[in-house]
Amino acid sequence: MTTHTDKQYEQELQQLKEEILKTGAIVEEMIALCMKALVDRDSNIAQEVLRKDPEVNRLEMKIDDLCLQLLALRQPAGPDLRSVAIGLRASKDLERIGDLAVNIAEQALELNKVPQLKPYIDLPKMALSAQNMMKTALDAFVRHDADLAQEVCGMDDEVDLLNDKVFDELVTLMENDSSAVSRATRLILVSRHLERIADHATNIAEEVIFMVKGKDIRHQGGHKN
Amino acid sequence: MTTHTDKQYEQELQQLKEEILKTGAIVEEMIALCMKALVDRDSNIAQEVLRKDPEVNRLEMKIDDLCLQLLALRQPAGPDLRSVAIGLRASKDLERIGDLAVNIAEQALELNKVPQLKPYIDLPKMALSAQNMMKTALDAFVRHDADLAQEVCGMDDEVDLLNDKVFDELVTLMENDSSAVSRATRLILVSRHLERIADHATNIAEEVIFMVKGKDIRHQGGHKN
Repeated sequence: MTTHTDKQYEQELQQLKEEILKTGAIVEEMIALCMKALVDRDSNIAQEVLRKDPEVNRLEMKIDDLCLQLLALRQPAGPDLRSVAIGLRASKDLERIGDLAVNIAEQALELNKVPQLKPYIDLPKMALSAQNMMKTALDAFVRHDADLAQEVCGMDDEVDLLNDKVFDELVTLMENDSSAVSRATRLILVSRHLERIADHATNIAEEVIFMVKGKDIRHQGGHKN
Repeated sequence: MTTHTDKQYEQELQQLKEEILKTGAIVEEMIALCMKALVDRDSNIAQEVLRKDPEVNRLEMKIDDLCLQLLALRQPAGPDLRSVAIGLRASKDLERIGDLAVNIAEQALELNKVPQLKPYIDLPKMALSAQNMMKTALDAFVRHDADLAQEVCGMDDEVDLLNDKVFDELVTLMENDSSAVSRATRLILVSRHLERIADHATNIAEEVIFMVKGKDIRHQGGHKN
């Protein structure tokens, strides 16, 4: 039997989920658009990315308010509590992804003022991976699917490798052609921003695994403990 | 009159505060050390930074556990609830600052293998500002001092300006001397990492203002809403 309060509580949890997905959809579009602005050399699209940022910021604050309200008034426990805790953190990851898309759009605005240095091959690949990781992490969040979240963590290595490859290639290019320096440096920053987007998607996935399994898998790889 | 439970609750809140400060002290040291590794060209110190990272990761998880435990068992309200919510987010900011110090140490390890490109002047300045911002943000957190937190937000502009200056100078340097490219690119990344550290300190300060005033001051500057 469901009481009136239970129903309201369920609705609030549902709303939290929806706001997170809504934010996710906007930032995913921002990633696609900032890369389009870069690849198609279209500064109007870059401006569109900049215009989307305030909405993401607004949604971050809305999600945080919802979380605090749920914590204060509903005292969620168990998986619900972890779900709200993820909300408080994922909102920040999503907002940062939006900021990084803005940073890429800003680099596109500068790069579009001068002739294109070279065809972009690895950067769009990195962007697609990062977008895919983010979408998968949010799917995993909605479905409470730890296996799916685990897949996201595995995808991060590929983006890291591409980032290293882009760095090495562009450094070599600059060493051989001083006229390439300013543009290549900006592209290295774009590559870093994409790598960071993938990191934020990984953060979200790790939190989902924690939510589902109640087990903290963060910080198990990479550095010895 | 204080009940047994009240006392335990106070102790748990106090412990949360202490763990946050402890983490803050470690990452502050990591910033100082990674810059020392760079400026003094001392790779042993860079390795020391890498060795400190697991402790920060462990503390992040400990802080999160404490927060979830407080939320689940104590149902904090009002300022206490906001304090716990900040804990959940500041732990992430501190952990990221630790990661960024590791990234700088990794660049120092590479840079120490080759002759120094130029004397470092602006990077240490940026690092000192970032360290100062982080320390001040944590002071503001402990003292619940919104005015002090506000000062941190004002200090961020200086770091951003230095970051832009470093970028322009190093690009010019690379354009004039192709042998400088690899080193200058790494220094541009160091500068970015320092700028990001300052951003994370600003995040913490903004959260403190929210905690004290219950008013969300995030996202008020920069972009129109």
